[in-house]
Amino acid sequence: MSSLPAPDLARVAEDLETLASYRDPDAPGWTRRVFSRFDRAGREWVAGRMEEAGLTVETDAAANLIGRLPGAGRPGAIVTGSHTDTVQGGGRYDGIVGVLGAIEAVRCLRQAGAELGHDLVVVDFLGEEPNDFGLSCVGSRAMAGALDEGHLALVGPDGRTLAEALEEAGGRPGALAGARWSTGLHCYLELHIEQGPVLEQARVPIGVVTGIVGIHRLLAHITGQPDHAGTTPMGKRRDALLGAAETALAIERLAVELLAVEAALAGERLAILRLGHARPAVGGVATTGRLEVRPGASNVVPAEADLWAEARSAEEKTLAEFERKLGEELGAIGARRHLGTSLSWISREPPVLVTDWVAGAIGQAARSQGIEPLSLPSGAGHDASYMARLGPMGMAFVPSRAGRSHCPEEWTDLEDIGRGVAVLAQAVIICDHREEAVPGEAAQRAT
Amino acid sequence: MSSLPAPDLARVAEDLETLASYRDPDAPGWTRRVFSRFDRAGREWVAGRMEEAGLTVETDAAANLIGRLPGAGRPGAIVTGSHTDTVQGGGRYDGIVGVLGAIEAVRCLRQAGAELGHDLVVVDFLGEEPNDFGLSCVGSRAMAGALDEGHLALVGPDGRTLAEALEEAGGRPGALAGARWSTGLHCYLELHIEQGPVLEQARVPIGVVTGIVGIHRLLAHITGQPDHAGTTPMGKRRDALLGAAETALAIERLAVELLAVEAALAGERLAILRLGHARPAVGGVATTGRLEVRPGASNVVPAEADLWAEARSAEEKTLAEFERKLGEELGAIGARRHLGTSLSWISREPPVLVTDWVAGAIGQAARSQGIEPLSLPSGAGHDASYMARLGPMGMAFVPSRAGRSHCPEEWTDLEDIGRGVAVLAQAVIICDHREEAVPGEAAQRAT
Repeated sequence: MSSLPAPDLARVAEDLETLASYRDPDAPGWTRRVFSRFDRAGREWVAGRMEEAGLTVETDAAANLIGRLPGAGRPGAIVTGSHTDTVQGGGRYDGIVGVLGAIEAVRCLRQAGAELGHDLVVVDFLGEEPNDFGLSCVGSRAMAGALDEGHLALVGPDGRTLAEALEEAGGRPGALAGARWSTGLHCYLELHIEQGPVLEQARVPIGVVTGIVGIHRLLAHITGQPDHAGTTPMGKRRDALLGAAETALAIERLAVELLAVEAALAGERLAILRLGHARPAVGGVATTGRLEVRPGASNVVPAEADLWAEARSAEEKTLAEFERKLGEELGAIGARRHLGTSLSWISREPPVLVTDWVAGAIGQAARSQGIEPLSLPSGAGHDASYMARLGPMGMAFVPSRAGRSHCPEEWTDLEDIGRGVAVLAQAVIICDHREEAVPGEAAQRAT
Repeated sequence: MSSLPAPDLARVAEDLETLASYRDPDAPGWTRRVFSRFDRAGREWVAGRMEEAGLTVETDAAANLIGRLPGAGRPGAIVTGSHTDTVQGGGRYDGIVGVLGAIEAVRCLRQAGAELGHDLVVVDFLGEEPNDFGLSCVGSRAMAGALDEGHLALVGPDGRTLAEALEEAGGRPGALAGARWSTGLHCYLELHIEQGPVLEQARVPIGVVTGIVGIHRLLAHITGQPDHAGTTPMGKRRDALLGAAETALAIERLAVELLAVEAALAGERLAILRLGHARPAVGGVATTGRLEVRPGASNVVPAEADLWAEARSAEEKTLAEFERKLGEELGAIGARRHLGTSLSWISREPPVLVTDWVAGAIGQAARSQGIEPLSLPSGAGHDASYMARLGPMGMAFVPSRAGRSHCPEEWTDLEDIGRGVAVLAQAVIICDHREEAVPGEAAQRAT
């Protein structure tokens, strides 16, 4: 089973460097946003690398780049991939490692003369990152049959619709139903950078993802009274900013109490995780990312505050508990400070669990490389979230230096990328050997 | 001493109503901002009312409207007045009561045939409220000799300088030195609405101001790290928003602990104040009025926060203590949360104490009307702050409904305005009888 050649790190490094050169020179970092000419040019180059690796390349109606290595005709493809678009001011690894790494895995498999029963398909999904239309995972959403007419009608800041942007990117919005994956999915595998600090701190090069967190997003609106800041005694104020400050701190406290186990990731806990026997309780986080206060004059007691926050957990019931307790906290803050409060949950993305046998195959592949992997949840959404709707799904993580991501400093050591590619290639073989998927075995959506 | 006729409430009501009709119809509330044509028109009307009341009216180089009732030649004038400009979306009483009330007081004095030893001068100061040039108290500042070339060169949003705006408003910026009050000041009296809730809650119609608070303004800059909100464990974050939230709450707590006594204004405390024996400890407040958080995306840990706040107290040493403790608190927050912090004190206006004998005259005048007044500090700045630089100063407050001010709901009952006018007129007589001011008796600046 370890008959595969090691990934060629020099080749991987060159691929990473070349793709990084397709960037917006007027933007910070390594910016290659979806629907930009930089992304289009980068994806043309990726298509060329797929062909050089021996894949037959096509573009579907959602402009996903699809490279296929035919197998011996067993039903359902093994699909792997990720995305090559970036956020504004992003880095050189997020998504990219999963696409270029999959191409390198194909090279290794072909070099070893591996004969797969299933087709192996490498996908560079269109636009995984949030775009100007407020949407993320455009390509994988379409492949899962979840990109609808409402999405296509979204209008960007330049007046274009998403349909127009998609067409310009090489898609065929009028034929979008054809983008839905219809030829069977044996399993979906995605290699990705962790984008967090857990693997680095644990000094483990491979993570086996246990699930992708659900995200509940909220808007809290707090209303007070814009009194004169010089003449209104402290005890008579209805200060919306102070209510918002207490709310943000309550969100942090609830995150630590209810959601987070990573906060406790040290010593004993890590040792348990590394044993790998039990699926660890998945952890979560909550963040107040945006706060706006009005009227915003130094001599007026703030009268209104809007606070946007989100909670993430791989367990839906924990998110429900978070919602309930935050509602109670906000009500108590409002009552104590004589503030009006309203809490809207503006979106609820449910958690996605990975499929046990796929995660098991990734763990087995890691051990075949002499690596005892760490099980951990994914705090970020991925194309895998949508692909899980089509069939069995699993993800492998490689470490991110200092946990940094979505910034120019994003970094993963080349050696770790090489380990990830080797694990991916080995996992393809293990998954290929598995008997045909049992009906109803598609990745579960946690409830 | 109670030989003066009662103010004519119908006449006062008509004056208030007429002046309120000079307003910007396109702005909310009762807007008559300095340097607007509405303010110029309103002041022309005020000049006419001054003349009708028997005053000789002139406009000085700072466009202050000055009406004089000659006395019997004793040195130094008794000056009283306030301002008739408003904030954007302001009300019908702030400043206005002090100008129209002074004119009504003159009418009462003349009707009673009162013969004053000192000249009595009524001033409608130009532009007390903050203007487009970022300056307040333009007219009283000039009268105190504190409006300099730097102020005149300030540029507003339409590209005009303050000098140009002043000229258009009827001033003579080239002759500004002439605006400095040079003919002696026996004392300055100002009638004003409280703009806070203390008198209303205490059910006392007249307040004797003990001092005008000093204001120290700060900018706290907090820097963290813009990590991925989904993948960064709670314990590994450097969240600038949460640091700012703790800072805002610390500012509130320090205000209550160090500055405020109004917060405790109830029962026993009020009883002590009403005895009027001892000058009460003056109270204060602190407010975080503006908070900006970057980058402001719901899925990014906030990396930077700027927080603008101010502390007000009539005691400079309390403000110094506030500064010291806030510096300690911010440092502790930064250390605990691994945040960078910097604290700049962007302005420090010192407190202004009133002159004991002037405050005493106001208290005596109130008692002559059967009112036991309440002593309280002024939390807002006033033209009196600058006039105190020229000689003895005192202020009387009338109640503000629910403490509201700088808003269309600003309200003072007509009966309370009448009481304030009666107290002002009586105080003029009491002050007029006082022997010439002892040299060096000008209002002290607290240190």
